[in-house]
Amino acid sequence: MKTFHITRPDEQIRPALKEKIDNLTKPKGSLGRLEELALQIGLIQQSLTPSLEHPQNVLFAADHGIVEEGVSLSPRDVTWQQILNFLNGGAGINFLCRQHGFALKIVDAGVDHDLPYERGIINRKVRRGSRNFAHEAALTWDELETCIERGAETVRVCHEEGSNVLSFGEMGIGNTSPSALWMHFFTGIPLEQCIGAGSGLDAKGIRHKTDVLQRALNQYEGDGSTWDLIRYFGGLEMVMAIGAMLQAAELKMTILVDGFIMTSCILAASRVYPEVLPYAIFTHCGDEAGHRQMLRHLHARPLLNLGLRLGEGTGAVCAFPLVDSAVRMLNEMDSFAHAEITKYF
Amino acid sequence: MKTFHITRPDEQIRPALKEKIDNLTKPKGSLGRLEELALQIGLIQQSLTPSLEHPQNVLFAADHGIVEEGVSLSPRDVTWQQILNFLNGGAGINFLCRQHGFALKIVDAGVDHDLPYERGIINRKVRRGSRNFAHEAALTWDELETCIERGAETVRVCHEEGSNVLSFGEMGIGNTSPSALWMHFFTGIPLEQCIGAGSGLDAKGIRHKTDVLQRALNQYEGDGSTWDLIRYFGGLEMVMAIGAMLQAAELKMTILVDGFIMTSCILAASRVYPEVLPYAIFTHCGDEAGHRQMLRHLHARPLLNLGLRLGEGTGAVCAFPLVDSAVRMLNEMDSFAHAEITKYF
Repeated sequence: MKTFHITRPDEQIRPALKEKIDNLTKPKGSLGRLEELALQIGLIQQSLTPSLEHPQNVLFAADHGIVEEGVSLSPRDVTWQQILNFLNGGAGINFLCRQHGFALKIVDAGVDHDLPYERGIINRKVRRGSRNFAHEAALTWDELETCIERGAETVRVCHEEGSNVLSFGEMGIGNTSPSALWMHFFTGIPLEQCIGAGSGLDAKGIRHKTDVLQRALNQYEGDGSTWDLIRYFGGLEMVMAIGAMLQAAELKMTILVDGFIMTSCILAASRVYPEVLPYAIFTHCGDEAGHRQMLRHLHARPLLNLGLRLGEGTGAVCAFPLVDSAVRMLNEMDSFAHAEITKYF
Repeated sequence: MKTFHITRPDEQIRPALKEKIDNLTKPKGSLGRLEELALQIGLIQQSLTPSLEHPQNVLFAADHGIVEEGVSLSPRDVTWQQILNFLNGGAGINFLCRQHGFALKIVDAGVDHDLPYERGIINRKVRRGSRNFAHEAALTWDELETCIERGAETVRVCHEEGSNVLSFGEMGIGNTSPSALWMHFFTGIPLEQCIGAGSGLDAKGIRHKTDVLQRALNQYEGDGSTWDLIRYFGGLEMVMAIGAMLQAAELKMTILVDGFIMTSCILAASRVYPEVLPYAIFTHCGDEAGHRQMLRHLHARPLLNLGLRLGEGTGAVCAFPLVDSAVRMLNEMDSFAHAEITKYF
């Protein structure tokens, strides 16, 4: 398995950052979470004048064998249909990327369809959908490693393109199921509290989904190691996102974490490399049951609470202006001394 | 007193708006609060394709007689010093206005200082600070009417300039005190729960502020009518904001409500004209004690919860991209039928 060399941001610059923030022309602490974000990004970039360069939303897509068990309301075909919608610019993530100046990279991690790669989709297909983990491991060890490596490579390209801030999104009908299992394994929270409506299951649908996932869990006979759980139950796009997040942290980029699925990915990533977390900004708490609990487990305080549950990276991109505000605060606000204002305490 | 002709948005367009939102390429409801915002703005503008034109932050500034009683940590001079900081572009509201394309109008409602009007400050000074309501009415009836009229006039100018969305902000050392009293009167919540730290009082400072406000309340001998309470305890910039909000609602503009002080203004405004509320978007829940309770009383669910307590309109402008996202969703997302995607339910 590829090794990542991730180190926590050097803390030495913290007092200087804190002093700069406290001396901007506002009552101390009065910009609340923006001040904390400024501190975090200053630490990541080791700079009193950080900047956010060439933001990109990297959207990994794949299909999931588990949908054979009827765990999703949306039909499997929606995965590839939505990818065409992304290409045409008509999806949720498109208007948000346009609004906030994000480039959008669509990465086929494992969609069960022949996609028009000539239209700009990045072809990193590992296989046509993961296997059905109700009966067997979703991925082989080889496939796991390939996903991690391809996710990491995508991020290296973004880095070479000049990006220092990335959000990650997903499209994959059925992917709340593997996310719920990962959440259960990596937090210890009872399985039923990790399972939600996905794209819109009713109570009966959720009960069925719970039964299916409980049975999958019961028949698992692996060694219980983090990588084995990731492999056995993981989606191709989700594992690729883990590789991407780890590479981003190694390169000291800021990671914008989207909703339930992407949070389960960084949770899984942090079980192998806890040092990934200081690079992560948890952008929102979604509407999928379990997301709030998973965030709490990570001691993460999301920026937005708007009941979003679309995925694709929409929540992360939607929250970007707040991150941008934090950086602008640090760079553009005047200090009390320079502005000749009596300092508020 | 000037009469405003405010009518609630016509509800007839609601089903068409709802249908449009529900048929965008996303699971129904999956863009959460953005969908509600889109509905609200569609209703305000009576349009399936609303737009946000020429956003402006109108910042009313004034001094307060009550600061003589030691209710504020920040010295009175900070009011005019911060106005110069606004002119120089170094304050919190400046970088946010630049970031989100807001024009910034600074209106002197009653600052106790000779300001450089030639530098673009709008001079609507009614008097050099309100009177100390610990001993007498802060404003006369004439001053009250003048403030309302000047606030309304400022908004009419914005409307003529092509704006259909405005945020209102304030600068006025001491203005959490009148806001706390208005909150108490207009919600019935016990006074001590309406009082907070302002720009940074400690527990002892808050106790003193509570004593001062309790005594002011005890010695009040007016008729208890809404306008009399607004007049007796009001700040000049706050009353001007009330006039501005009422005029904006009459002109069917979208009102972005900032923090504790601006929320107390729309609360007061709604006691005279309840029809103002459908035009208001409550942008954030600030850190000042009482703000959350006041919002709850108004059945308002703020967009952001970031612990902001700077005022100036910062929270409202900070939240603007979310409002913009809602409008873009409505205008830019494709429908299931047109995108040829199997509809999620």
